[in-house]
Amino acid sequence: MRISSVEAPPLQRTEAEDRERVLTEYYAVRQDSERLCEPLAIEDYGIQTATEVSPPKWHLAHTTWFFETFLLQPLLPDYREVEPRYAYLFNSYYDTVGAQWPRPERGLLSRPTVEEVYRYRSHVDRAMEELITRSAPPVWEEVARRLTLGLNHEQQHQELMLTDIKHNFGYNPLRPAYRQTKERPDAASVLSDWLEFAGGEDRIGFDGDGFCFDNETPRHRVLLEPHRIASRLVTNGEYMAFIEDGGYRRPELWLSDGWATVQRTGWTGPLYWEPRGGEWWQMTLGGMEPVDVSEPVCHVSYYEADAFARWAGRRLPREAEWERAASGFGTGSNLRETGFLHPATAANGDGMQQAFGDCWEWTASPYTAYPGYRRGEGAFGEYNGKFMCNQMVLRGGSCVTPPSHLRLTYRNFFYPWERWQFTGIRLADDE
Amino acid sequence: MRISSVEAPPLQRTEAEDRERVLTEYYAVRQDSERLCEPLAIEDYGIQTATEVSPPKWHLAHTTWFFETFLLQPLLPDYREVEPRYAYLFNSYYDTVGAQWPRPERGLLSRPTVEEVYRYRSHVDRAMEELITRSAPPVWEEVARRLTLGLNHEQQHQELMLTDIKHNFGYNPLRPAYRQTKERPDAASVLSDWLEFAGGEDRIGFDGDGFCFDNETPRHRVLLEPHRIASRLVTNGEYMAFIEDGGYRRPELWLSDGWATVQRTGWTGPLYWEPRGGEWWQMTLGGMEPVDVSEPVCHVSYYEADAFARWAGRRLPREAEWERAASGFGTGSNLRETGFLHPATAANGDGMQQAFGDCWEWTASPYTAYPGYRRGEGAFGEYNGKFMCNQMVLRGGSCVTPPSHLRLTYRNFFYPWERWQFTGIRLADDE
Amino acid sequence: MRISSVEAPPLQRTEAEDRERVLTEYYAVRQDSERLCEPLAIEDYGIQTATEVSPPKWHLAHTTWFFETFLLQPLLPDYREVEPRYAYLFNSYYDTVGAQWPRPERGLLSRPTVEEVYRYRSHVDRAMEELITRSAPPVWEEVARRLTLGLNHEQQHQELMLTDIKHNFGYNPLRPAYRQTKERPDAASVLSDWLEFAGGEDRIGFDGDGFCFDNETPRHRVLLEPHRIASRLVTNGEYMAFIEDGGYRRPELWLSDGWATVQRTGWTGPLYWEPRGGEWWQMTLGGMEPVDVSEPVCHVSYYEADAFARWAGRRLPREAEWERAASGFGTGSNLRETGFLHPATAANGDGMQQAFGDCWEWTASPYTAYPGYRRGEGAFGEYNGKFMCNQMVLRGGSCVTPPSHLRLTYRNFFYPWERWQFTGIRLADDE
Amino acid sequence: MRISSVEAPPLQRTEAEDRERVLTEYYAVRQDSERLCEPLAIEDYGIQTATEVSPPKWHLAHTTWFFETFLLQPLLPDYREVEPRYAYLFNSYYDTVGAQWPRPERGLLSRPTVEEVYRYRSHVDRAMEELITRSAPPVWEEVARRLTLGLNHEQQHQELMLTDIKHNFGYNPLRPAYRQTKERPDAASVLSDWLEFAGGEDRIGFDGDGFCFDNETPRHRVLLEPHRIASRLVTNGEYMAFIEDGGYRRPELWLSDGWATVQRTGWTGPLYWEPRGGEWWQMTLGGMEPVDVSEPVCHVSYYEADAFARWAGRRLPREAEWERAASGFGTGSNLRETGFLHPATAANGDGMQQAFGDCWEWTASPYTAYPGYRRGEGAFGEYNGKFMCNQMVLRGGSCVTPPSHLRLTYRNFFYPWERWQFTGIRLADDE
Repeated sequence: MRISSVEAPPLQRTEAEDRERVLTEYYAVRQDSERLCEPLAIEDYGIQTATEVSPPKWHLAHTTWFFETFLLQPLLPDYREVEPRYAYLFNSYYDTVGAQWPRPERGLLSRPTVEEVYRYRSHVDRAMEELITRSAPPVWEEVARRLTLGLNHEQQHQELMLTDIKHNFGYNPLRPAYRQTKERPDAASVLSDWLEFAGGEDRIGFDGDGFCFDNETPRHRVLLEPHRIASRLVTNGEYMAFIEDGGYRRPELWLSDGWATVQRTGWTGPLYWEPRGGEWWQMTLGGMEPVDVSEPVCHVSYYEADAFARWAGRRLPREAEWERAASGFGTGSNLRETGFLHPATAANGDGMQQAFGDCWEWTASPYTAYPGYRRGEGAFGEYNGKFMCNQMVLRGGSCVTPPSHLRLTYRNFFYPWERWQFTGIRLADDE
Repeated sequence: MRISSVEAPPLQRTEAEDRERVLTEYYAVRQDSERLCEPLAIEDYGIQTATEVSPPKWHLAHTTWFFETFLLQPLLPDYREVEPRYAYLFNSYYDTVGAQWPRPERGLLSRPTVEEVYRYRSHVDRAMEELITRSAPPVWEEVARRLTLGLNHEQQHQELMLTDIKHNFGYNPLRPAYRQTKERPDAASVLSDWLEFAGGEDRIGFDGDGFCFDNETPRHRVLLEPHRIASRLVTNGEYMAFIEDGGYRRPELWLSDGWATVQRTGWTGPLYWEPRGGEWWQMTLGGMEPVDVSEPVCHVSYYEADAFARWAGRRLPREAEWERAASGFGTGSNLRETGFLHPATAANGDGMQQAFGDCWEWTASPYTAYPGYRRGEGAFGEYNGKFMCNQMVLRGGSCVTPPSHLRLTYRNFFYPWERWQFTGIRLADDE
Repeated sequence: MRISSVEAPPLQRTEAEDRERVLTEYYAVRQDSERLCEPLAIEDYGIQTATEVSPPKWHLAHTTWFFETFLLQPLLPDYREVEPRYAYLFNSYYDTVGAQWPRPERGLLSRPTVEEVYRYRSHVDRAMEELITRSAPPVWEEVARRLTLGLNHEQQHQELMLTDIKHNFGYNPLRPAYRQTKERPDAASVLSDWLEFAGGEDRIGFDGDGFCFDNETPRHRVLLEPHRIASRLVTNGEYMAFIEDGGYRRPELWLSDGWATVQRTGWTGPLYWEPRGGEWWQMTLGGMEPVDVSEPVCHVSYYEADAFARWAGRRLPREAEWERAASGFGTGSNLRETGFLHPATAANGDGMQQAFGDCWEWTASPYTAYPGYRRGEGAFGEYNGKFMCNQMVLRGGSCVTPPSHLRLTYRNFFYPWERWQFTGIRLADDE
Repeated sequence: MRISSVEAPPLQRTEAEDRERVLTEYYAVRQDSERLCEPLAIEDYGIQTATEVSPPKWHLAHTTWFFETFLLQPLLPDYREVEPRYAYLFNSYYDTVGAQWPRPERGLLSRPTVEEVYRYRSHVDRAMEELITRSAPPVWEEVARRLTLGLNHEQQHQELMLTDIKHNFGYNPLRPAYRQTKERPDAASVLSDWLEFAGGEDRIGFDGDGFCFDNETPRHRVLLEPHRIASRLVTNGEYMAFIEDGGYRRPELWLSDGWATVQRTGWTGPLYWEPRGGEWWQMTLGGMEPVDVSEPVCHVSYYEADAFARWAGRRLPREAEWERAASGFGTGSNLRETGFLHPATAANGDGMQQAFGDCWEWTASPYTAYPGYRRGEGAFGEYNGKFMCNQMVLRGGSCVTPPSHLRLTYRNFFYPWERWQFTGIRLADDE
């Protein structure tokens, strides 16, 4: 599979062609967000079933606010907002541009209505079209740069919308389906193999032509010890063996903070698993299903991934190990466009299966700055850099990631106790 | 003003007439609930901005569940529910009939949708019509008795819907209006007078023919000392004087638990008041308005009412004092049907103005059982009796109370820190 | 048993005799507090195992601060404090005289040490002796009045010291004994009888010559309906029957707030009860003991008392009922001076056994002001009046009450969920 | 300064000599702990003013429990404990050997008394002497290995005792001194210089002969980019400039979690700083003192260290950078034995001043396993490995670290919000 990204304008085209292409891309991404909401009832747009979840309506408005705040207001003369108070309601965490409505209370706002939010989107889209097509040439370069960031930002929220919708629906005792998902092929689990890597110096990080987030840079040297990486993700069947072996009751398998979390929460299995008549069932975006033993385990926290690895006598890969392995041997294509919206059984083949798509893979690496990284100025510096503490790096995308959004060097990051993302486990080991 | 109630079937009519009248009454109350929701957007039906607030959708469904659970299931043969899991979602606090979805999470359910809830109502209404018109004569009496309770229950929730909608709208920084309310007459504040009462033995509590809640019984003897009661409610202007005199900063004016509440919450005025350019404004069901000094202060807690009374050198009336005064001298008619949906300036007249309507009046009486009261059996015993601890009695109804719901002997009760109801202050004093 | 009180100076004595008698009384009460601490290790003086518990060291210092603040500073010229910051550390809740060290953190102060606190007591005692013996005649009357309050205040804290020591020791897994308590006589349980009372008007409240707290006044008329009161307290054996009948698992028996408390805390029996090998044991001030079925149940909350009464088909007495019954028929003498420091089996005799001593008895009456009561000015108004909300009245004293402290009209009050006091149950019923 | 460690028995001595030397070392460390407590009043032994703080009494008992549990019980035949329940009270976090008294409640236990804890220590010391002098030769090697760990463990707790005592005393409004500390030399601040380092491959981690903790191994290769490191710690004066420049009010300087912490806690300066009459004062182990601008800033969290570095346009050193710099250029000797018990002004000299002693230095490195690290089996695996998540590495020891305990390769670790340790800041930068 080819992993590409939303690309910044290459230089050989004319500026007019660039503007046209960018406008097309802009509408493509914007419409994608709205298409994801088509299966929703009005009521589904507004709820927030956990602090880390946002209502779909909020996602639609916040991504719009991003364009308004960082492109229209500074760069489009005479731009008029629909409603000045939206800046307060739809700013997420950009302290440098103003105060924010409290995150845990995003689900408490019935107004603006869904219809008003769509009107807000249209208003901004029209202004963006004007900005894209008519901004003065000296401004255009800055427009293009920020717009690329804005589209990548919106794609991130597209993924979050699906994870959040799943949480909202999974929380409801009626367990409604988001939509009928495409049926996954029936496949038996393949044996996991080890991909072996000699140690040595290598390079990771982005230095291509297209777009990347600042946290993927600079490309830099890393030193690796000999190690090996599993050829596929850990399956539900393997994870059930961990549970049956008392995995959630044995403190010696856990990190201290992980064990405290298990005691506090009472976890006995992955998020969305529930026992029904002696069997495990799980919530999916297509509704309740029995857990398939050959599919990858999903919706586990870092703590669980780490405990599973310890139980298995292995460890999780470091992010540099993951990137090197995936750069040569990575394969996988179950991203959002397959329509499964759920991780699928690994294919029988060479290389590092399921590297791209299926599940975000927890690495053993805390999320920190690459050597030489500098946080951007102002609000752009808040995008990634201010989160470089207390979180763990995840790699490889998931079954709800937009394909044009992913890259080999993409660094995702979440707190080690979070599990509402599509997060899974790949094992590694020292030689 | 004549205060009447939804009445139980008197004996002189034929049973057929009774059934017809009851059916009419049933539909009247049920349609009233739905009419209250007409100004709402779909989004407004689902949110819950405080633990004690419920989403309008939940009120519509819960009142329906009440008829389903206590009338249809036990009394209508072959009744089939729309969805068995609604029993879990829409039971409020009846432990004896089953588990309940957690109260603080009523706003986290996007399903059933508003449309589905209306379908649920229709389904139950059709079955209720069958029960009312065709139940066997020996069953009919029990149907009539429970139905009267069910309708009074639904009227209580109609009042709660308006208070909850106000809270939900007032919480939103956009401060939307529920609907254009009827304009209140422009009136200057009248002076407050004292109504004097000699002490002695008297009787309070219900013993009429119509419906009452069990907590209003039995009618019983009380012994009163000489006292006096204010002829009207405390006004916003008077309350501002309390604020300006440091009312919220002087611990000696407060109950210990009240002062702790002020310290914890940071209250500096009634709920819904906000300073704008040196003036107090307030949220109303019609949107933001300047506070009118001649209107009654509203949305204060018992703690504030008690502190105000102490500041004024007075006290709050006991509930027996209130009932005796109101029984002979009480007047007032600003209930829900005036369309003000807000307390209005006292009229210039004799007697105890604003006794009925405008604001629920905090009394100095904790909510306890009348001598000889016995809690009912099973779920009906949970209706009122189990709340007889830690709450204070309020009397007299408010501007959002359905007129046919109120009675002289009606005992409302809330925790002393609550202020999202339309609650105000009337002073009393010892002779 | 004769229930007397620390008396204010009667008029027929000379002032010199009065001063001498008061000085004797002063030292008697002060030394009593210190004698209660004799069995303690230094370490036992400092800990606080619940927010409502205070360390013994704090009690010793706070009662001293009371004399310093309300007598020495205003009335003894040139009085110098040992340490001005003690005013902050040892003020309990008198907002009108200054800020207070947070109540939940009283156990976090290793300094002043125990020795320093005893020095503080001596310092204040010497100054008090001077004030008592040498204050100018016009001041003396005020001294005597405040001193009587101060001594009654210190006696209240003596009782609290024992309840708090019990909590601190009972919290420790080593379950140490406070001291060897005097052995209680071995006695079988007597049958409970009903004392019957006709209804009618009566009077309650204090109007004698000696000291009383302001909340016992004014003596006033009450109206009672016919009722009956149990001749003894509910026993452990009777309470075990409630437990075995599922008392803690049946919501229909509980007040709503009580049931929520049971769910939150996981209560399955009275405080200090623990199962050992199929039997109930309990912590006492003399260490762990098996629960004796014939002794009164103790350390139950109002919620439990109320649920037990409902289970038994009865109710709790109102405070006026209690006072009338006890005034004619009350008997009992297991107060602190018996040395049992634990409730004992009821004697076989006429009248209302165990009315005084053994356990404080929960009444059905919320703690409110008597008709005509006015809160005192300034700090003295904070003594009782500011707590007249959310608490329930208890009557009759307990096995750790100083005998000279109790009166027929004494009103104790605690929150309905509290159970670390020696609190028990007496049943009542309507005729 | 030579940084040595408590050493494991070298091979060239006779076993008898080894045993003698080990016994001497054992008593030296044990007596050190008790000597640290000499200035304490009995009351000071028992309190716990924050969850992360433990009472000195608990430290004395817990270190004793460590020897009892991991040496005496498995290796000394017929060993009898003083009290079996101590295992529950004094286990800290070793889930594999049993349940633990809750950490936040260590200050709620008045028993065992201080005297009893010292008796417990003597009892264990006598048994340890027997084990050291008479264990059978095949057992001796395991005894020696575990005993070395036990002594290093006790030294860690000696440092914690001083930090915890400081917190307990600093929390008390009386601000008592622990003891008169030795006066620090009066010195002006020297200018900070940059020590420059070329990039390249290097090695860090322990591989010497003496003792180290498992988390310092294995020694392994690291790859460094060119960088520079400050020649001394950040001073109070420099930190004041950060404060005066609005450091605590500018979100753009902070990590997201750090800013949330500042908002929640209201921090406006380092722990123990308080403004008095326009000047900063601070709590020290010798009592309150004015803040000296030339001394290193201390008691700052990682969040503050990181924000300061960003404000200064620099960054914090990575742990490999720190270890390489300190291995060649590190100097410093203000550890516990200077008696200052407070960081002191940097000396004027070459190299990396204050590398050892003064303040633990926050690094930019999250605490994770070195490549090839394996967690030990059973309880020993809980010592370090289970904390490898959510914490940051600190290096270099502090003014309260026992000198024989520190090593170049020593890895300390705390949560990024913690600041009750003696923690300071050294800047670094990319070339």
